[in-house]
Amino acid sequence: MSRSAPFSDMAGIRAALSRLPGPDRAAIAAAQARNSALTKPPAALGRLEDLAIWYAGWRGDARPAFGTPQIIVFAGNHGIAARGVSAFPPEVTVQMVANFRAGGAAINQLARAFDAVMEVVAIDLDRPTVDFTENPAMSEEELVSAMATGWEAVDPGAGLLVTGEMGIGNTTSAAAIAAGLYGDGGEWVGRGSGIDDAGLMRKRAAVEAGIERHAEALSDPLEVLRRLGGREIAAMAGAILAARYYRLPVILDGFICTAAAAVLECQQPGALDHAVAGHVSAEGAHAQLLERLGRAPLLSLGMRLGEGSGAALAIGVLKGAVACHSGMASFAEAGVSGGEN
Amino acid sequence: MSRSAPFSDMAGIRAALSRLPGPDRAAIAAAQARNSALTKPPAALGRLEDLAIWYAGWRGDARPAFGTPQIIVFAGNHGIAARGVSAFPPEVTVQMVANFRAGGAAINQLARAFDAVMEVVAIDLDRPTVDFTENPAMSEEELVSAMATGWEAVDPGAGLLVTGEMGIGNTTSAAAIAAGLYGDGGEWVGRGSGIDDAGLMRKRAAVEAGIERHAEALSDPLEVLRRLGGREIAAMAGAILAARYYRLPVILDGFICTAAAAVLECQQPGALDHAVAGHVSAEGAHAQLLERLGRAPLLSLGMRLGEGSGAALAIGVLKGAVACHSGMASFAEAGVSGGEN
Repeated sequence: MSRSAPFSDMAGIRAALSRLPGPDRAAIAAAQARNSALTKPPAALGRLEDLAIWYAGWRGDARPAFGTPQIIVFAGNHGIAARGVSAFPPEVTVQMVANFRAGGAAINQLARAFDAVMEVVAIDLDRPTVDFTENPAMSEEELVSAMATGWEAVDPGAGLLVTGEMGIGNTTSAAAIAAGLYGDGGEWVGRGSGIDDAGLMRKRAAVEAGIERHAEALSDPLEVLRRLGGREIAAMAGAILAARYYRLPVILDGFICTAAAAVLECQQPGALDHAVAGHVSAEGAHAQLLERLGRAPLLSLGMRLGEGSGAALAIGVLKGAVACHSGMASFAEAGVSGGEN
Repeated sequence: MSRSAPFSDMAGIRAALSRLPGPDRAAIAAAQARNSALTKPPAALGRLEDLAIWYAGWRGDARPAFGTPQIIVFAGNHGIAARGVSAFPPEVTVQMVANFRAGGAAINQLARAFDAVMEVVAIDLDRPTVDFTENPAMSEEELVSAMATGWEAVDPGAGLLVTGEMGIGNTTSAAAIAAGLYGDGGEWVGRGSGIDDAGLMRKRAAVEAGIERHAEALSDPLEVLRRLGGREIAAMAGAILAARYYRLPVILDGFICTAAAAVLECQQPGALDHAVAGHVSAEGAHAQLLERLGRAPLLSLGMRLGEGSGAALAIGVLKGAVACHSGMASFAEAGVSGGEN
């Protein structure tokens, strides 16, 4: 079902980002009209109404069905992990990939609970990225390949995309990306999967060293991703970009997913118009990042697991929103008084 | 499947409230132990972990299945509606009951989206309660009958209970109940389904007149319910009480449902230990009421529809929490390093 990425080098990625399709304006207008006629006081469903209209616009259908969500968990390993920036050893990435494939992780349970199709894409786990305090994490070819892997993992026939990640060390990489895009260096560093105070200092030092090492290239968001990111992060960016071309709505997950998405938005403002923030995680910098992106999260439940788990839980909210919009009767159909107000 | 209420007068209700069953402490301890062993960093699922352990305690099962949710929408009519306190005319109550039965309302779509069984219980719609600014809204017999109706509507075999309501005028009644229980008179009044400024003044005046009329009886929460409440509100209180006896977890909906629940908590502190707040509604006083009850809502999406809609949407959160808890592998089972930390 998937299709080949329409780029083979960084110039091709830039070109793809420069000509993004928009939503269907006629479907939005028709969905707004439908929403006004439904048997409820005006705006009584709050954000559910905006969500349903947004979903209708991207699906090009004023009364859309809620298609099967696709959850893709990308995994990658990070050279920076060797600097002791995580509470867990690097071998946990491959162990957790096995757990995803065996169905034992949180994201497996959430995928099942919300009738989503889940895939796991492990990218070169035996070949960690380069330690970004020394050199760019990825070559141009590696970045393009990882983004293409993300693009090609997306099912154009899905109804919704959630991208998740696994990669020991990747909150360090995400913090470095956020610092590269927005400045403020070590302010983006948090405890990730639960690093202690000493590890937190190492993590902050790593991010600051990375920012210093690559200072001359940070005005270019794609270069930020290449130099400070990781394969699973680049793959998420590629998948979110593909979803835009398929007019597939996206629910963003936590800090790492949002950092991947922020690269697209910084490279091309509006590039995330097809995405909503599923939740705000307990990783402190996530709230800051969502604020930079002007996104209010759907859920705030103190989660900080990654894997796509917060976004997967938010599938329920979007499903409920679309169900109300597409299934409710109008005042006229139901013979209820007051709809003329 | 339902059972008869164990009370036939107000003394019987008081007696039932005085001997509430608690959760299964052994199941809670076992669920906590299980939670610590699952393949995730400690506390990485945030509130989902607390929810799952709470659910396990009430179900008496450390690794519970998520049983079919039951949604009951109770409807009643209010004498106070004649004072022009609502944006909609009183006949909308019966019209919306028909809409519920035909499957056209928001709650029908949400019930379907979350695989819940939904029932509609309309109570004496042709006999509105008495205008509470003049006399008690209900006689003792009427209160007991409405609470028994609520009790008897609950399916002891369900996995979860959501109570919703429909009743033109019932945010006025709920505001009066909150004012009766906690003081602060008209401060609990909001726009409900969308009343204009003049109507808001009438609504505030009605609540203040009701509080003044019944001042001598307001130290007794059940009397507050009888004098200022409505049949659908009393029925929700009866259903939530029944759920406690069946150790059936409850998700509370918006302002009106929470006002019903608050009567139980004020009568017997701890009476809502089997309940969580599904959402905080856009009806301003709901947040205040949840604060009085010490409850943090699961969702905050600007909804203000009632019908049980906010609680129904929160079913997804609880379902996801239980799915993770009961379905995930342990570190040992999955062969993942780091669980010993």
